[in-house]
Amino acid sequence: MQPINLAAKLALIHEHWMPKVVAEMNDYQFKLVKLRGEFVWHSHADTDETFIVVQGRLRIELRDGAIELGPGEMTVIPKGVEHKPCAPDEAQVMLIEPRGVLNTGDQGGARSAPNDVWI
Amino acid sequence: MQPINLAAKLALIHEHWMPKVVAEMNDYQFKLVKLRGEFVWHSHADTDETFIVVQGRLRIELRDGAIELGPGEMTVIPKGVEHKPCAPDEAQVMLIEPRGVLNTGDQGGARSAPNDVWI
Repeated sequence: MQPINLAAKLALIHEHWMPKVVAEMNDYQFKLVKLRGEFVWHSHADTDETFIVVQGRLRIELRDGAIELGPGEMTVIPKGVEHKPCAPDEAQVMLIEPRGVLNTGDQGGARSAPNDVWI
Repeated sequence: MQPINLAAKLALIHEHWMPKVVAEMNDYQFKLVKLRGEFVWHSHADTDETFIVVQGRLRIELRDGAIELGPGEMTVIPKGVEHKPCAPDEAQVMLIEPRGVLNTGDQGGARSAPNDVWI
């Protein structure tokens, strides 16, 4: 039980697409991540996934459109919905999802990040 | 699936201590609330509870100390831990917790807010 300063934690992150855990609530984790460029299409069969933008702009492409998020904006991608996060410039984002969820979901592959890494 | 702008949603809230739901992730809810003054001591026996400060300053008193949070700071109060949120000036806060959690927890009483009210 301590204050977690999101900007201070984000300043410790120097890689892109590598989520770092900063807190847990029950069996959910709060992860901070810096994004730049395009990710891979993927979905999470068993869980919704929350994106909250802390800094920058995030575009989440969907098969039937896209969601654009700026600082102080959030969205929840429902389970099973294919999405592809993109950030032409760097976006600093908090993800909230159950412990154990892989960043690449059902897609796997080279862009999968190590899970459960705390900062 | 849509962008949720926290500041725009908070601008719709004109009461204090009345959480409003803005999003759901699985069986969890994201609630925005404006706090001013002192709340009641309470705990939640069955769940952790997350506080993220959007604007202002929030003090969460604990039986053995206190946590002070400013904008962009968060903390998770573990299940069963007694706490009393306080905000001498107005604090604008996002709460994250399972659907159905009452703001007054095990304490109940006059400060209990209607649950599951969306904005």
